[in-house]
Amino acid sequence: MREFDLLRHIYDGNRGLPTRVTIPPGDDMGAVRIGDQEVLVTVDQIADGVHFDLATMPLERIARKAITRNLSDVAAMAAVPVGAVAAACLPGDMTQAQATELFDHMRRVAEQYDCPLFGGDVSVWPGRLLLSVTVLAKADGIAPLRRNGAQVGDVICVTGRLGGSLHELDGHTHHLDFEPRLAIARKLAGNADTRPHCMIDLSDGLARDLGHLCRAAGVSAQVQAAALPVSSAAHRAAHADHRDVWRHAVADGEDYELCFTVSPRQAERSLPGEIDGVAITEVGLVTPANGDSRVMLDLLDGQKVDITDLGWEHGQVEIGK
Amino acid sequence: MREFDLLRHIYDGNRGLPTRVTIPPGDDMGAVRIGDQEVLVTVDQIADGVHFDLATMPLERIARKAITRNLSDVAAMAAVPVGAVAAACLPGDMTQAQATELFDHMRRVAEQYDCPLFGGDVSVWPGRLLLSVTVLAKADGIAPLRRNGAQVGDVICVTGRLGGSLHELDGHTHHLDFEPRLAIARKLAGNADTRPHCMIDLSDGLARDLGHLCRAAGVSAQVQAAALPVSSAAHRAAHADHRDVWRHAVADGEDYELCFTVSPRQAERSLPGEIDGVAITEVGLVTPANGDSRVMLDLLDGQKVDITDLGWEHGQVEIGK
Repeated sequence: MREFDLLRHIYDGNRGLPTRVTIPPGDDMGAVRIGDQEVLVTVDQIADGVHFDLATMPLERIARKAITRNLSDVAAMAAVPVGAVAAACLPGDMTQAQATELFDHMRRVAEQYDCPLFGGDVSVWPGRLLLSVTVLAKADGIAPLRRNGAQVGDVICVTGRLGGSLHELDGHTHHLDFEPRLAIARKLAGNADTRPHCMIDLSDGLARDLGHLCRAAGVSAQVQAAALPVSSAAHRAAHADHRDVWRHAVADGEDYELCFTVSPRQAERSLPGEIDGVAITEVGLVTPANGDSRVMLDLLDGQKVDITDLGWEHGQVEIGK
Repeated sequence: MREFDLLRHIYDGNRGLPTRVTIPPGDDMGAVRIGDQEVLVTVDQIADGVHFDLATMPLERIARKAITRNLSDVAAMAAVPVGAVAAACLPGDMTQAQATELFDHMRRVAEQYDCPLFGGDVSVWPGRLLLSVTVLAKADGIAPLRRNGAQVGDVICVTGRLGGSLHELDGHTHHLDFEPRLAIARKLAGNADTRPHCMIDLSDGLARDLGHLCRAAGVSAQVQAAALPVSSAAHRAAHADHRDVWRHAVADGEDYELCFTVSPRQAERSLPGEIDGVAITEVGLVTPANGDSRVMLDLLDGQKVDITDLGWEHGQVEIGK
């Protein structure tokens, strides 16, 4: 199955949507107007054997990831979570105690982010554990940040550090333990001096997700390898597998950091170097697409590499994202 | 895993929910207040091998069921669908053409009910086909009908005909081809003369789902077998397996009809015998629980059968339902 063909096919259908759909499939969240309220919605699923390993990972961290993955989508729109519903397929050999523990952890994590679980559906089935979480959010005074606003000349920025998300380091395994960037997104988007032109959360890696921003705006991107904020875990991973560390930074995926663009003027005058202790790093520039959106990486030796679509892909196609 | 223990555990947590959750887990839909708008949400999933058979059923009917099952929950609250998001796990051997066809059908069915698909998430995974659909709805001038309003003396009613949902008859297989009772629910609930005290949709069969209404209100129910509106498919099924036809009517499940209670005065004076060509049938009375909610069936020969929790169970536990 070719993901892009399926996505293009789905997006082609957006034209027929009623006007109350204010954000159609193709962004981190969809949105629909109900009365005078715009309601943003994201759904995301994690499956045993694909996104986590039930045999080796504690239920607490699996439950956490099921919630926080969605909250990272909420952050990407600079929205505020309101509540969540969860659908679960439980394997037949899961005990009552395990199921109860899993739900308790999901509820606790959801409450921690003021995003209460208020409904759901559970099946016991012959397959493996699957958790599908839908989160509702509101704009709450800050217009949602879309994917499609990048302009040629914009400065490309990321929060935090990239790469090595599967690598455990000092008890922290990033793909399970990451912090969704909700507050940082609100601070960036709520101030005209720093409000990005577009934003996305990095679930598939900088190369692929920056590619989404580029295609949405009909532009390309030029990233400087020297500028990439590489995580310690990515350095360890590179040491272990003898691959270039930049590959880990742009293609490991599951960073759940924010990638956004601002004008050169914003970058120069207003953009802080960190927010709430999390680094904001300029990593490249938006360039003309010349008909085909590409993400290019300038290596330290002057070599240029096309990293478009480079990245970790576990068969994930995100319709609404 | 014992379903009721898990459900009780989940409902116990409802006390801690913030006040913006206006309908907590335990009803056909949950609801949360966003601004001045109450947003109702339901999530439901169907899995290959549990709720349908991918090998023998057309994608069109599978797609339809994924949407209409949720719309039956919307009907149970007498709400109006607004939009939907879908999460799908596709088996690795599904072709691009099949995936495209499946999404096109889901989109078309959703549009047909003015409930546009506006987001989603798709994974290709090593398991079987699984579709998880979340539907948003609004009250639109009619207060949502809850499960918990039954009063002793109320008349118990159902729409349509019951039983035999898995049995094909003249090309109609009810569990795939049913019509969610959205318009009927609005007509019943929008008029004080007919507005039910409580309502539920019949997904697990009258015995189990009427049991939910009874437990929610601390009452019991007495149903007359002679009054049950038995479907032709249920008669055929009974003929084929030599079981009593009433068993099919109360326990086959997947009727997706409405079950509700009204006051004796409403039943006598205002309740029509049919709405939009669909029969409204009185099947029994609400009785005191005496400490334990039971659903009793009076057979034709005067025998009384306790049918509480009798029914088709495929390991389904519905948290929010």
